[in-house]
Amino acid sequence: MHEAREADVAVVGAGLAGLAAARAVVAAGHSVVVCEARDRVGGRTLDHDLGGGQVVEAGGQWIGGGQERIYELAAELGVETFPGRSEGAKVFVFDGKRRTYDGELPPSRRVAADLVQAMLRLRRLEKRVPAEAPWEARDAERLDAQTLGAWVDRTTKTRAGRALLTLFTGIQHGADPANVSLLYALSFFSSGGGFARYAEADQHRLVGGSQALSRRLADRLGDAVVLGSPVRRIDQSGAEVVVESELVTVRARRAIVAAPPILSGSIEYRPELPSLRRQLLRAVGYGVVIKAQAVYDEPFWRAEGLSGTALGPGLAAPFAFDNSPPGGSPGVLLTFLHPRRGAALADLRPAERREAVLECFATYVGPKARQPAGYLELDWSAERWSAGCVQYLTPGALTRYGPALREPCGRVHWGSENGTVWVASMEGAIRAGERAAGEVLAALAGAAPAKERVTVTTS
Amino acid sequence: MHEAREADVAVVGAGLAGLAAARAVVAAGHSVVVCEARDRVGGRTLDHDLGGGQVVEAGGQWIGGGQERIYELAAELGVETFPGRSEGAKVFVFDGKRRTYDGELPPSRRVAADLVQAMLRLRRLEKRVPAEAPWEARDAERLDAQTLGAWVDRTTKTRAGRALLTLFTGIQHGADPANVSLLYALSFFSSGGGFARYAEADQHRLVGGSQALSRRLADRLGDAVVLGSPVRRIDQSGAEVVVESELVTVRARRAIVAAPPILSGSIEYRPELPSLRRQLLRAVGYGVVIKAQAVYDEPFWRAEGLSGTALGPGLAAPFAFDNSPPGGSPGVLLTFLHPRRGAALADLRPAERREAVLECFATYVGPKARQPAGYLELDWSAERWSAGCVQYLTPGALTRYGPALREPCGRVHWGSENGTVWVASMEGAIRAGERAAGEVLAALAGAAPAKERVTVTTS
Repeated sequence: MHEAREADVAVVGAGLAGLAAARAVVAAGHSVVVCEARDRVGGRTLDHDLGGGQVVEAGGQWIGGGQERIYELAAELGVETFPGRSEGAKVFVFDGKRRTYDGELPPSRRVAADLVQAMLRLRRLEKRVPAEAPWEARDAERLDAQTLGAWVDRTTKTRAGRALLTLFTGIQHGADPANVSLLYALSFFSSGGGFARYAEADQHRLVGGSQALSRRLADRLGDAVVLGSPVRRIDQSGAEVVVESELVTVRARRAIVAAPPILSGSIEYRPELPSLRRQLLRAVGYGVVIKAQAVYDEPFWRAEGLSGTALGPGLAAPFAFDNSPPGGSPGVLLTFLHPRRGAALADLRPAERREAVLECFATYVGPKARQPAGYLELDWSAERWSAGCVQYLTPGALTRYGPALREPCGRVHWGSENGTVWVASMEGAIRAGERAAGEVLAALAGAAPAKERVTVTTS
Repeated sequence: MHEAREADVAVVGAGLAGLAAARAVVAAGHSVVVCEARDRVGGRTLDHDLGGGQVVEAGGQWIGGGQERIYELAAELGVETFPGRSEGAKVFVFDGKRRTYDGELPPSRRVAADLVQAMLRLRRLEKRVPAEAPWEARDAERLDAQTLGAWVDRTTKTRAGRALLTLFTGIQHGADPANVSLLYALSFFSSGGGFARYAEADQHRLVGGSQALSRRLADRLGDAVVLGSPVRRIDQSGAEVVVESELVTVRARRAIVAAPPILSGSIEYRPELPSLRRQLLRAVGYGVVIKAQAVYDEPFWRAEGLSGTALGPGLAAPFAFDNSPPGGSPGVLLTFLHPRRGAALADLRPAERREAVLECFATYVGPKARQPAGYLELDWSAERWSAGCVQYLTPGALTRYGPALREPCGRVHWGSENGTVWVASMEGAIRAGERAAGEVLAALAGAAPAKERVTVTTS
């Protein structure tokens, strides 16, 4: 049964961005309807139930590095935080050799020097790229014609340094750096206060899982959130915006699309979106990541003085982190699997893939890792309503289509993956949603939208 | 009224590739149904009627450089050819200076030397990249992590050389070289026998327009071609392949999808396509080109000793060609408009864009160009059933997903934009369609598919 509703604002997507936008709209005294394609809220945050009242995150999970808004929101919603890293030695595996170490840098003076040198160069480049308008950077076109991967190849001098920097920068995009525009990557890092800052972005996790934020936001919005209702068409050819979704058609004064860019491009728009916006959407790449986690009765590595943090660039599971719930029971190890060279790993049968991952974990923290009590995987690229994990821009796109990132199209505003602060993190989602809500509230009040407040300080 | 049909083979798309595939299937004694989304055949070939029995091509038009199959097909279908270039001096405009010249290279020894040097380097790189399996090239990953644009920037030493090579290489992809993977570009050039060979790819045009080939192929196929019938779903979960389109559902033994990759990705597949194929489709970029043509009572530039060929990198219309029909009446000048820096030109209002183009033509061939009898434009990126002109691969895609380019998915075969000979030309379309048909015929005969016959000789 198809329902017709009216609201001041229609929001597409009940991930963190859409819900943060809806919350801001309601807080300002306006009515809202949120259409969500899935049968759940939270978008790219999703908690797996481990039983016994424990969960582990299958999607976005870490916060830190001065991400103000998400700490504020968690406090407001009564979601507590706990340390994102565990104490103990780290493991570095390269060329078949396994070494433990304690500091922030891998246990080879040569490799460490190579990495530090490369990161200083990255810092110099980042400083040239304003996160709000990267296309205005000096030499923007030349930076946009390069890939992050080619830059890493050129800049690093040791094989291990290259492999590590490829891994570190790739994780942020959920992609191989070879796919990502260098200018885009610089603007991305710049939006978080610099690449070095990303090392602190795992300071905390959220007790009860990161999806709890979205669940609590949705609870407050009540029946304004319509689940299981993919949006098919957004029609602003009349005096209103009509958002047609599977279960409900919403007539609104403004719409906020807070779906990942790739998905927002498959909605039918009337009138058609401007060509710049359409071209932008075609130039978006998406992270192909399987998040794999092994669950053990306890985090046995801790008793052996290991933190669970391990780096093994080149291995099937190129790193590991201790992802146990607070209290440390059960124990969980996580990794991300990226396709490289023919996407071999993603195409392995699940059982073979599980075995390959557990074998890596055993290399990292010992043979007990081969016998987990459970094993969880989520392939974000196969999620119809996520279209990958983070999304990024391919070379040549930002200088050409960048100005269309945030530019509203008539009465339709864009509230996902287009922030200027901590892009493509949970913090960035909240900020992108709130920025779009700010534009809409200003428009409803008849005023010009205020400029985004940028609070990140760059050192 | 929805119709149900049965055939040995269902073909998706009645462009040159799909029709060439259907022709091969029928020639082997099998039945075929071709579903075409548009109300016409020909895909990215389309002829504009100029009146008086004359046409001018709004899409693909040139042949040459030893493209065997299209010459054979044209002869078989009774479509004649005529010279693709006209005699006379060429014009080069750079930094506000206009000069005429006669040879193949621009009239500056320094710039010519720069171009020759760059093209020799390109030749050396191309030779390393086998068109059939570019991912097996030495250093493939590193080449794939670069863009063609960054390579051009790095390799050229003069501003004019850089601008010209950017123009020449960009035209082939309908895109800015900054968008295109260097490895992909090398495999593309290699597929045509080398970049230098593209200079001969405009030797001929087809009398009566290039779309005539598709019209004649379709005439022979009769009611096997169903127009106005976009394919929504391809279901091979049962024992057959069921192709569901707007007007007809075809039950077939095999299907050939000969739609541009981006469009083939928006069909619903049951079961879902393998992840490698899905990722490949997401990594395809598409050429954003407006083909603009001005029609004059006669090609007045010829009387002044000009060929109509002009190069003006940096101008709104960065080049011109004489595109008059055979006989030279009326006279036609053509250019391609690419977006660069914010896609300004594509977003101009049509009247302003027309004026900008005519102003360039006046700079090239004289003030008479300002008063055309007619002006034609086609924005291929706005064509719903083309999704751009040529399609290409963005960095990092070929090494990772390349093997999925031609790999059939069950009983579904891919017959567009995935050839190994003259990729993304009319020749390439015919060959890609015929290769897919060859796979299908081999499968229907119970034999293993034969390896593609590669007939290009590389010097």
